Amino acid sequence: ADAEFFKGIGTIPFKPDAGPTETLVYKHYNAKEVVRGKTMEEWLRFSVCFWHTFRGTGADPFGFPTLVRPWDDGSNTMENAKRRLRAGFEFFTKLGVKYWTFHDRDIAPEGETLAETNKNLDEITDLALELQKKTGVKLLWATCNLFAHPRYMNGAASNPDAHILAYAGAQVKKGLEIAKKLGAENFVFWGGREGYHTILNTNVLTELTNMANFFRMAADYKKKIGFTGTLLIEPKPKEPTKHQYDYDAMTVIGFLKHFKLENEFKLNIEPNHTTLAGHGYEHDIVMASAFGLLGSVDSNTGSPDLGWDTDQFPMDVKNATLVMKTIIEQNGLQPGGLNFDCKVRRESTALADMFISHIGAMDTFARGLRNAAKILEEGVMTKHVKKYIMDNGNPTACSGQQEHCEAMLNYYV
Amino acid sequence: ADAEFFKGIGTIPFKPDAGPTETLVYKHYNAKEVVRGKTMEEWLRFSVCFWHTFRGTGADPFGFPTLVRPWDDGSNTMENAKRRLRAGFEFFTKLGVKYWTFHDRDIAPEGETLAETNKNLDEITDLALELQKKTGVKLLWATCNLFAHPRYMNGAASNPDAHILAYAGAQVKKGLEIAKKLGAENFVFWGGREGYHTILNTNVLTELTNMANFFRMAADYKKKIGFTGTLLIEPKPKEPTKHQYDYDAMTVIGFLKHFKLENEFKLNIEPNHTTLAGHGYEHDIVMASAFGLLGSVDSNTGSPDLGWDTDQFPMDVKNATLVMKTIIEQNGLQPGGLNFDCKVRRESTALADMFISHIGAMDTFARGLRNAAKILEEGVMTKHVKKYIMDNGNPTACSGQQEHCEAMLNYYV
Amino acid sequence: ADAEFFKGIGTIPFKPDAGPTETLVYKHYNAKEVVRGKTMEEWLRFSVCFWHTFRGTGADPFGFPTLVRPWDDGSNTMENAKRRLRAGFEFFTKLGVKYWTFHDRDIAPEGETLAETNKNLDEITDLALELQKKTGVKLLWATCNLFAHPRYMNGAASNPDAHILAYAGAQVKKGLEIAKKLGAENFVFWGGREGYHTILNTNVLTELTNMANFFRMAADYKKKIGFTGTLLIEPKPKEPTKHQYDYDAMTVIGFLKHFKLENEFKLNIEPNHTTLAGHGYEHDIVMASAFGLLGSVDSNTGSPDLGWDTDQFPMDVKNATLVMKTIIEQNGLQPGGLNFDCKVRRESTALADMFISHIGAMDTFARGLRNAAKILEEGVMTKHVKKYIMDNGNPTACSGQQEHCEAMLNYYV
Amino acid sequence: ADAEFFKGIGTIPFKPDAGPTETLVYKHYNAKEVVRGKTMEEWLRFSVCFWHTFRGTGADPFGFPTLVRPWDDGSNTMENAKRRLRAGFEFFTKLGVKYWTFHDRDIAPEGETLAETNKNLDEITDLALELQKKTGVKLLWATCNLFAHPRYMNGAASNPDAHILAYAGAQVKKGLEIAKKLGAENFVFWGGREGYHTILNTNVLTELTNMANFFRMAADYKKKIGFTGTLLIEPKPKEPTKHQYDYDAMTVIGFLKHFKLENEFKLNIEPNHTTLAGHGYEHDIVMASAFGLLGSVDSNTGSPDLGWDTDQFPMDVKNATLVMKTIIEQNGLQPGGLNFDCKVRRESTALADMFISHIGAMDTFARGLRNAAKILEEGVMTKHVKKYIMDNGNPTACSGQQEHCEAMLNYYV
Repeated sequence: ADAEFFKGIGTIPFKPDAGPTETLVYKHYNAKEVVRGKTMEEWLRFSVCFWHTFRGTGADPFGFPTLVRPWDDGSNTMENAKRRLRAGFEFFTKLGVKYWTFHDRDIAPEGETLAETNKNLDEITDLALELQKKTGVKLLWATCNLFAHPRYMNGAASNPDAHILAYAGAQVKKGLEIAKKLGAENFVFWGGREGYHTILNTNVLTELTNMANFFRMAADYKKKIGFTGTLLIEPKPKEPTKHQYDYDAMTVIGFLKHFKLENEFKLNIEPNHTTLAGHGYEHDIVMASAFGLLGSVDSNTGSPDLGWDTDQFPMDVKNATLVMKTIIEQNGLQPGGLNFDCKVRRESTALADMFISHIGAMDTFARGLRNAAKILEEGVMTKHVKKYIMDNGNPTACSGQQEHCEAMLNYYV
Repeated sequence: ADAEFFKGIGTIPFKPDAGPTETLVYKHYNAKEVVRGKTMEEWLRFSVCFWHTFRGTGADPFGFPTLVRPWDDGSNTMENAKRRLRAGFEFFTKLGVKYWTFHDRDIAPEGETLAETNKNLDEITDLALELQKKTGVKLLWATCNLFAHPRYMNGAASNPDAHILAYAGAQVKKGLEIAKKLGAENFVFWGGREGYHTILNTNVLTELTNMANFFRMAADYKKKIGFTGTLLIEPKPKEPTKHQYDYDAMTVIGFLKHFKLENEFKLNIEPNHTTLAGHGYEHDIVMASAFGLLGSVDSNTGSPDLGWDTDQFPMDVKNATLVMKTIIEQNGLQPGGLNFDCKVRRESTALADMFISHIGAMDTFARGLRNAAKILEEGVMTKHVKKYIMDNGNPTACSGQQEHCEAMLNYYV
Repeated sequence: ADAEFFKGIGTIPFKPDAGPTETLVYKHYNAKEVVRGKTMEEWLRFSVCFWHTFRGTGADPFGFPTLVRPWDDGSNTMENAKRRLRAGFEFFTKLGVKYWTFHDRDIAPEGETLAETNKNLDEITDLALELQKKTGVKLLWATCNLFAHPRYMNGAASNPDAHILAYAGAQVKKGLEIAKKLGAENFVFWGGREGYHTILNTNVLTELTNMANFFRMAADYKKKIGFTGTLLIEPKPKEPTKHQYDYDAMTVIGFLKHFKLENEFKLNIEPNHTTLAGHGYEHDIVMASAFGLLGSVDSNTGSPDLGWDTDQFPMDVKNATLVMKTIIEQNGLQPGGLNFDCKVRRESTALADMFISHIGAMDTFARGLRNAAKILEEGVMTKHVKKYIMDNGNPTACSGQQEHCEAMLNYYV
Repeated sequence: ADAEFFKGIGTIPFKPDAGPTETLVYKHYNAKEVVRGKTMEEWLRFSVCFWHTFRGTGADPFGFPTLVRPWDDGSNTMENAKRRLRAGFEFFTKLGVKYWTFHDRDIAPEGETLAETNKNLDEITDLALELQKKTGVKLLWATCNLFAHPRYMNGAASNPDAHILAYAGAQVKKGLEIAKKLGAENFVFWGGREGYHTILNTNVLTELTNMANFFRMAADYKKKIGFTGTLLIEPKPKEPTKHQYDYDAMTVIGFLKHFKLENEFKLNIEPNHTTLAGHGYEHDIVMASAFGLLGSVDSNTGSPDLGWDTDQFPMDVKNATLVMKTIIEQNGLQPGGLNFDCKVRRESTALADMFISHIGAMDTFARGLRNAAKILEEGVMTKHVKKYIMDNGNPTACSGQQEHCEAMLNYYV
């Protein structure tokens, strides 16, 4: 029999009457419950990310690792990588989520050569495929890490050095192949180093054009190999660079349209990135959806008073309600989902914290789904907007009634 | 009989089973309901501010007034001032709040001379006293407007011109006298122009010393005339000036201690100012309370993505819960209260919006009170913090369990 | 003879050896001096804006007007409007700038009806035309104020009420006609109320589509009447609304491309808006220029620590150098220019401050021009970027040398 | 003979006529040149920090190390530590700075036990003492790293676990001892983990009181061992925690005064922290100096559009001028200095970048010193402020003349 990594924690049950300290049960998320014609599971399509949850160490710019996992011996070996993956699938299963996501470099160690790295990926994805089949957990999306290795410090697709761009191309080629192999429903690009630190050493138009060419090649290769997942670009305004080219939803939409890529890509919106760009929590989700380009959501949150990406678990029911309202209005995110690109705080060192954090976020979104469904069911808020648009029959100042709308929303949250 | 200004709107009833569009009833605020030994009314001590609600025009830096009130003919006459005051007391009464607040210049027109201005104040405060007696509405606090008139453009207490400082002194003298006359329970100082736009034309130590001397004189005069209200300083980091000396709670506490004024003043905390200073919503309330200096709260909110004071009605139940938890822990705000230093959006032009906005905020705080009382009643969160402090028996990294705490909080909100 | 409004101040001379307190002379701006093949005047194309400089009162959200101008009796009459205009042209002439800009409502009082308003505009623009001819001062651009009147509180082009949209259309029609009459070289759209305060009462796609249609009609009418000026959209992220649709350069570029308007419009970039959107000072100028869409610049600045539009005079030589480098690289802004959308601080109440502020900003940009010209002349910084791109011959981490570039820049500023 | 680590780079010469690409010479910093009665060296008291410059790896939250130093084999051995130290002193000497700074854990590896760690420190500080004597380089300040090790993840002085507080006390005891041994002129406390991530698991008053007790014990121990350096607290608003108790200068001043520690501690101001707290660059330096508590400066800068600590080399002459003006006005920083708490960008991978960055910053401050000296010499700006204060003889609105002041400043920068 397989080793058990999370001893003492079983499959998380639905227990709606649980008390406040019982944070290892679902009080609101009831996977098979039907809401507006779909199960909660179908609407929410929760996914666990491998990087934060199984590769996160708790290190930050001012501190060393704090998170010690019993299955991880800290080595860069294939054995360690496989143990981590098995622990991951035990976690996904006990939590009861149906999807996971990863970067290529999270799951398999980088080798001395690209060939060795790819061989490692082949071997690990064999195991991943086996575990997916065994558990029924599917791959929401894969992505390539084109930002952590020093070779990418000046960018990958926008790097001034053609050799590095070529290396990035080879990496994405392999990334798309393993995405296909694992049946990924999407493939994400996050351009962490595509941007600039100082305009003094940068030619922005050259770099943007190179990026567009890179994306075009990726889209071509996807078709060539018959990968059918959706390609997604994830906007972020800054960090690690001073300016990241994929600043926010509208910036990426402008980029896609300028370079005629809008039929090949959709957006993966992360609210913590949205708020760093100076917008309200739900803004980029609303905008991307309005333009028909909302593909998936990295459902996390930041602290509004902090200027960097904290990737916290989303615990605010009002925000979750507004997000789910938009998602229901576009009839779901499929083939996208709600991926928890979140990490436990580096002070949350217990194994149980891994569960508690995901459960808290899932319950928050379950409440958001129920609230949003009720809002749309009763229709009074939607009617209010329609009436506001249609009834204004004379050029005077008609009340916008923001507080009335806020009070109506508070009825539901 | 008196004229009725808000026709068609009666006393706001408590109707807990009202639907989402019924925003002219209380669904949560039940004034006489007892929570942890006091009525809701006693815990919450709601107050309506006269300036935003009866002098606000909807003008902003980019637009002309939008709010037209039938009782206000736009003139600077005493008749108009009296009609506004009568409308105000009808509003307070119908809303069911027991307190109001004002600036000296809101309620009575400024005259040609200080003598005339003071005479106007005398006449208006006679009416105010009469209306207070008739309605039972009391004065939570008065304050002097030492920022709007051009004479104060370079500061009042910190003005480089001694004549202006003297003028400000005369104004505060009168302000304290009318506060006493009306039985104000507190008196507030907000130093809107006490700060700098550029360090190039400023000597900060001279200005801070002048401010301290000014506050000392005010405290002395308060005692001299036997006014027993609490003196409060309201921090704000910036706007209208680039830097306001009373930046945040800790800055004011430092200032009071440096100049040995900490026994004469407490703080009036406005969360919209707190968030502009880069803190979390509840931060300054927690800090001021920890130092025994939380006197009163201007319960409003801003938008976390905006960099100026929007003075919105507080509609977030989670924030209200954290604020009320601190207030219960210090056994109430009395003689302070929760003053709505909020304004309807300039697009919320209907008279009903004045009620809807206050009701929404009061219901939000009533929910916050109930949640906070339950949290303290059940005690699991408080116990968690205590246990966290006491049980850490060895110098290792003990889990901070932030997500567990967040999930517990979500149980209550 | 005409009345003189600025007695005691003559035409501002060029006096390169003036001392620090002599702030009523140019120390750097020498209009006819040739730099890289054009005169300073031709490169810089300075313009004074009428609204801040002749309609600004010093009022802010916390204070009454402070700026008293001897020629302005505060009345809404045509006589007053004409005196202001004459004072304006005296100012432009003495300052030695060749361009001015205005909003329709700045120069002529709004009447009871649109017809009366338009008649006022006709009469005032007759005088403006006469003064333009007499002085040689030209109109850099005109624009319509579609944000100050209460009718526009919920938007103009994006207003939910079709009547208001129609009214805005009539206003723009007239605006384009007077722009043509006065030989405006451009026409600007700033959508101060086109955005939202809360997503709860807004349908963003409907509003954006309405805006696009409005812009299309304006472009059509421009052609119909034979107006040859460039149409410009001015991005701003927020303020007065919580979210303004024209957030930043890339957002507007995306909007123009989505709605196929990119051949009809260029951008008017205001750095104070750029920094409010979270970018570096020069960012939107660089981006707009890279996409071939930089039409004109509202050369002002904000305080980086403030979250609202302070419209200060630009006094930072390093920023001016980076802006002028981009402008030289695209061979100038013509038919656009550097418009001072700036206001004296409300504490800068002397008439001389009007001159000192403009002179300081013009000298700053003259230094920026000289610095940028020298940078491009000597070519070492440009070569550095090229070399950085070309020489990176192997996929290793090649030094980005930011500090070397910064030190090189410091050589020039 | 000793190994040479920076081959090909000699002592940096003063070469005032060097061209833009010559960034390995001083164009402005001339150590022995006398300015207002002191040499540049005496005014500026430059210091190199060991952590960024000799322990920085270029790793960031999204990327692996990029900076490879030939003398550093990456091991945690004493031999490696000693090589690093020798490289450091070669660097200090060639650069021509007279001071260095370090954290205890930067210079010597942490052992298995505190005893072993302290033994390592003893051995390394023996070498440091030898190198100090040999080169004449002195220790501006030492500090203890109380934030990187996992044991401190919930704070050091404010940790809820008394064992960890005791451990921190033992570490500071040793830190003060080695500071004394090396003749440190100051000793710094930066409370990187003293604050909170969520108020939900925090009791702020308990934690602040514990911190104050900790500081008191440190001050007592300093006296006991006869260490005569100044104790300094370094404010920072946030990062790594959501809220750091030492938010900004005024917050620390308030804390010191509340807990009666103001005679034992001064402030070490870092402008990148000041701007993160929402202030202007020079603000905290001005405030700390006004209260007589400016002890030393970590002279770096951030990007105003970024919300985290980027620790860039200060390259802005205007900012340096304002800082030096305050420093001259208080007659110097001694025994404090200008410590470069700065790091080369992770893309600046060349060894030469280490020099170029420091030289660029030192030249910037040398220009700032010259500018500030001239401003004070000519006195027109100081006179302006005095006149502004004294001449305002009637309670009217006297022009603040901000633009005039800015133009005067631009004369000097």
